[in-house]
Amino acid sequence: MRVFTTTVGHGAELTCYVQDPSEELALKARPAVLVLPGGGYFFTSDREAEPVALAYLAEGFNAFVLRYSTGADAPFEQSFDDAKAALAWLRASADDLHIDGVAAVGFSAGGHLAASLATAATNKPDALVVGYPVTLAEFGPPIGKDILDIPSLVTGETPPTFLFSTCDDVLVPVRNSLEFLSALAAHHVPFESHIYLLGVHGLSLAKPLTASGRADHVDEAVAQWLPDSVRFLRAVFGGFTTSGEPETYETVLARRVVGMDMPINRLLDDEAGAAALRRHAPAVAEAAPLDLSVARSSIRQLLEQGSGLVTPEAVAGLEAELTGQGK
Amino acid sequence: MRVFTTTVGHGAELTCYVQDPSEELALKARPAVLVLPGGGYFFTSDREAEPVALAYLAEGFNAFVLRYSTGADAPFEQSFDDAKAALAWLRASADDLHIDGVAAVGFSAGGHLAASLATAATNKPDALVVGYPVTLAEFGPPIGKDILDIPSLVTGETPPTFLFSTCDDVLVPVRNSLEFLSALAAHHVPFESHIYLLGVHGLSLAKPLTASGRADHVDEAVAQWLPDSVRFLRAVFGGFTTSGEPETYETVLARRVVGMDMPINRLLDDEAGAAALRRHAPAVAEAAPLDLSVARSSIRQLLEQGSGLVTPEAVAGLEAELTGQGK
Amino acid sequence: MRVFTTTVGHGAELTCYVQDPSEELALKARPAVLVLPGGGYFFTSDREAEPVALAYLAEGFNAFVLRYSTGADAPFEQSFDDAKAALAWLRASADDLHIDGVAAVGFSAGGHLAASLATAATNKPDALVVGYPVTLAEFGPPIGKDILDIPSLVTGETPPTFLFSTCDDVLVPVRNSLEFLSALAAHHVPFESHIYLLGVHGLSLAKPLTASGRADHVDEAVAQWLPDSVRFLRAVFGGFTTSGEPETYETVLARRVVGMDMPINRLLDDEAGAAALRRHAPAVAEAAPLDLSVARSSIRQLLEQGSGLVTPEAVAGLEAELTGQGK
Amino acid sequence: MRVFTTTVGHGAELTCYVQDPSEELALKARPAVLVLPGGGYFFTSDREAEPVALAYLAEGFNAFVLRYSTGADAPFEQSFDDAKAALAWLRASADDLHIDGVAAVGFSAGGHLAASLATAATNKPDALVVGYPVTLAEFGPPIGKDILDIPSLVTGETPPTFLFSTCDDVLVPVRNSLEFLSALAAHHVPFESHIYLLGVHGLSLAKPLTASGRADHVDEAVAQWLPDSVRFLRAVFGGFTTSGEPETYETVLARRVVGMDMPINRLLDDEAGAAALRRHAPAVAEAAPLDLSVARSSIRQLLEQGSGLVTPEAVAGLEAELTGQGK
Repeated sequence: MRVFTTTVGHGAELTCYVQDPSEELALKARPAVLVLPGGGYFFTSDREAEPVALAYLAEGFNAFVLRYSTGADAPFEQSFDDAKAALAWLRASADDLHIDGVAAVGFSAGGHLAASLATAATNKPDALVVGYPVTLAEFGPPIGKDILDIPSLVTGETPPTFLFSTCDDVLVPVRNSLEFLSALAAHHVPFESHIYLLGVHGLSLAKPLTASGRADHVDEAVAQWLPDSVRFLRAVFGGFTTSGEPETYETVLARRVVGMDMPINRLLDDEAGAAALRRHAPAVAEAAPLDLSVARSSIRQLLEQGSGLVTPEAVAGLEAELTGQGK
Repeated sequence: MRVFTTTVGHGAELTCYVQDPSEELALKARPAVLVLPGGGYFFTSDREAEPVALAYLAEGFNAFVLRYSTGADAPFEQSFDDAKAALAWLRASADDLHIDGVAAVGFSAGGHLAASLATAATNKPDALVVGYPVTLAEFGPPIGKDILDIPSLVTGETPPTFLFSTCDDVLVPVRNSLEFLSALAAHHVPFESHIYLLGVHGLSLAKPLTASGRADHVDEAVAQWLPDSVRFLRAVFGGFTTSGEPETYETVLARRVVGMDMPINRLLDDEAGAAALRRHAPAVAEAAPLDLSVARSSIRQLLEQGSGLVTPEAVAGLEAELTGQGK
Repeated sequence: MRVFTTTVGHGAELTCYVQDPSEELALKARPAVLVLPGGGYFFTSDREAEPVALAYLAEGFNAFVLRYSTGADAPFEQSFDDAKAALAWLRASADDLHIDGVAAVGFSAGGHLAASLATAATNKPDALVVGYPVTLAEFGPPIGKDILDIPSLVTGETPPTFLFSTCDDVLVPVRNSLEFLSALAAHHVPFESHIYLLGVHGLSLAKPLTASGRADHVDEAVAQWLPDSVRFLRAVFGGFTTSGEPETYETVLARRVVGMDMPINRLLDDEAGAAALRRHAPAVAEAAPLDLSVARSSIRQLLEQGSGLVTPEAVAGLEAELTGQGK
Repeated sequence: MRVFTTTVGHGAELTCYVQDPSEELALKARPAVLVLPGGGYFFTSDREAEPVALAYLAEGFNAFVLRYSTGADAPFEQSFDDAKAALAWLRASADDLHIDGVAAVGFSAGGHLAASLATAATNKPDALVVGYPVTLAEFGPPIGKDILDIPSLVTGETPPTFLFSTCDDVLVPVRNSLEFLSALAAHHVPFESHIYLLGVHGLSLAKPLTASGRADHVDEAVAQWLPDSVRFLRAVFGGFTTSGEPETYETVLARRVVGMDMPINRLLDDEAGAAALRRHAPAVAEAAPLDLSVARSSIRQLLEQGSGLVTPEAVAGLEAELTGQGK
């Protein structure tokens, strides 16, 4: 592994952890995480820097930690410039860094910065992971900064997002999480979210090694966020393939398109699917909006349940048509 | 264990799974779960009934499954009456059933019914667990029922709530989860929430044994909701004590009251704490609203960091006063 | 679920937990566990009875707890008769009990009894699960009983075995585990074993609910044995199938038969495989016994690594022959 | 983090991964792992090198990977010299490397080398972790080397050992594991062992990232060995303390010494404990060897159970004496 440092943006230090390629491992490129530690835009916390990079390195990623501009003299735009410059440098150096795709990973104020990249930057990361993030502009004035209001900037271009926080966070209220998630849902951005009952602000990995000796910074339940985020990122980037093409959330969703095993109400959402259903099994098409037990069944299930709404011939005809027009 | 059936409300069947008391196990009463299976208020699904009861039984709970009134002839109020009657019967029979505290656990439409108990009933459960719940009144007309709008009924009396669902649910959009969570947050109801990236509607335990042979009903990530909910319920009811008093989320939060290890900004939220701070460390009280790095530190941390804002004497004086007035 | 009691052998009580069949769940028969609690052949402990049954029920099994004969008046043979009678009754009642296959599950002395069934009985269980078992005859005299010496009774007929215990057990030394495992290995009986560093004797599920208030009876690491044993039993019985035939350890091992992806040294163990290798790639057949790096590679790997020992033609010829004679 | 390389022994390359100290993290020294990859003493596999180092780094360790001498020209003693030199260098450089204690971690032939350090070297590691290790001298001739027979070299000085392997390993039979474990048990060396039912030889972390594209090198069950080994190493080295002194397996065992909550038979193993018991509760001392239900109970339990063998006065007297002479 190479560990080295470069400078981006307004003199921000980017520490790069790049794993050795290996013929034996048969891995050419790896997904990358760009880690943005928190610290209220006043400093960048060690607790959310190298230990986080190492956690992702151990899961096969290459990792990059940005010490973006902070402090009273650095307006938000300067921090944001640094983050944009870091991402641009990663994109430009992808081959040399053996990376393929970049997730922005940020905590608290660093989560705000990562989410700014994911919403307000032209060059967006491919995925976003945020822990107990600040997302609301109202958080700016108390720290003397003019920061972006993330929920209002979400669009369909915002990348898939993973968020964790705690209901028990008194420093950054859980509203910051919920308003962001609602915006993602409104724009159909795929997301995953874990909001734990207990846990103080700033848990980082929630393990003894990031606790600085504080017992309330260790929480086994919250510590699950890291492996959960790894699973999420594999759903975005694909895993380390052992045969054929990697599976992603997009291939999973694609398998859920128009077909015989899809709920009728979802089939009706699809123009071609709805037309085919009306042609081959009109009684089903009519019943579904009125009867949820029909709507949530697949055509195949209706047949198996002996529903009088379909015949084997209708199902066969429908299958032939859908297979012809399906993937 | 006794397994027996009783009838409550409008003839609804309540199956009771009551574990044998045992001198050796030293357990007199157990928390109870009242399981409300889903099925769009048209039926109650076996997949969300006995297997769910068994999952909680194995974790030490007593379990009760209610086959509440469903179907075109049963208006929502009839289902709701059944649920209220079941809870009333559990409360009245607590001694005989060896139970101490009741959580309502519901899925999909059963989640709506459980949430109705937790918001609109006078006799509320002590905790609420909902999976991919319907919460919005707009879901009623398509199924021909007039159902409650849960988010608008949330108050500070709503019990602690655990919610899981999937972003990928096309039958009950994730908005049902997010609007409910936002209402809980607005009323300071403690909650925990897991919204997974992938997963079809109706996953139940998301294990092969509840999948009815469908591969898309098995999901290892989502299956984590059950142990997570058990941890949540133990935080509400206390665990099976091995020494002294059980710890609950309330005892955890109580330890976070006014003290030397609490962030300054939280100390300032407390009237007595703020007064003590201004008396012993006025510079800190002044700096905190202006400097987040002060606000998020505890007084003890400031001292350790060598901040010029406090002296050892000030900390000692503050500690003496807080200890005198603290827990 | 039905819970009922029957009497077998010398008046031993067998409590039966039989899950309801359900059209919706599409499960006709389930594997069964016959639970034999421990207690030094002096009693049968509640801590290793119903809670263990419930843990397996929650994972989809049907469960049966036997209170076999114990105490000073009951010689070992009487306890053994009870266990044999229980297993015979389960076999005879399989249809009515909706079961398909039986695993004997025993703890401490109950582990000895389960292992006696698995080695010395004619009608053996299909799998064996033992926790901190007594296996050595030397344990008999101190408790005034004449018990079987399990390791010396192991044969190739002994069913697949799962064993857990702790190195820290002062009541039943870990030698009881190791001598049993060595006998299994010597007779090529497939097994899985977890021996934990720490943990007192008699942990049962190692969870608060079986701890009877004793903190040293709770151990998160050891508690992993239950899900591990469930995975093991699924490898023996097959899981709950979501498509096609269930996979078992036998199907996994079968895929490891003679083929292009098997290490050369294993290929050479197979008569037909060795002959084919000598015919198509004689240099490889000669090099393997001398060079471990060849021996542990598959023929396909050698080709990919550019080893001079094989040509693409040789590999193609070998594949054709092996495929012809392979699975 | 610094990543750098040094040379030890017969020109062997030692890659050092040393985490940055951080005031904020409050960690001065970390336990170290010395990783010895496998490869049949013919090469050192990348699959068992950097990915393993990263897995332990992420858990807070500092890590060191040794590319010891291998190949036909390097006799075993040369490899062994390299390993001894690496350990000596780590001991000598402990301050500069911020390390406190060293565990040797080896796989397959590297497991043999690590076990050689732990048994036959004067300067032994503080803990041993081996995966699917070769331990029997009989493995030497086939690879043309004269290697140590580990089981026969085990003494009471051998450090605590963690071992994992698979029953299904055809390259290195499970006998290599069992004979080693039996030797450890015979010499009262604390150990933990996980032998999985299924899994080919050479699984490394058993995750996709170390599988080199081979599906049979991924196994979720076996992948559990890494976190299990981390827990084991924390029991040896102590964890990252959040308050007071770290807890180790020795402090756990110490709490199990002579006392009121220890089983009678263990109390009788202790000279002073046995004398005290005979003085205060002679009936118990007499009954224990004859009655297992007495032997396995603690004196406090006997009292609680209303056993006629003890009086409250006897227990009080015993407690006073044991507390006087106990910890």
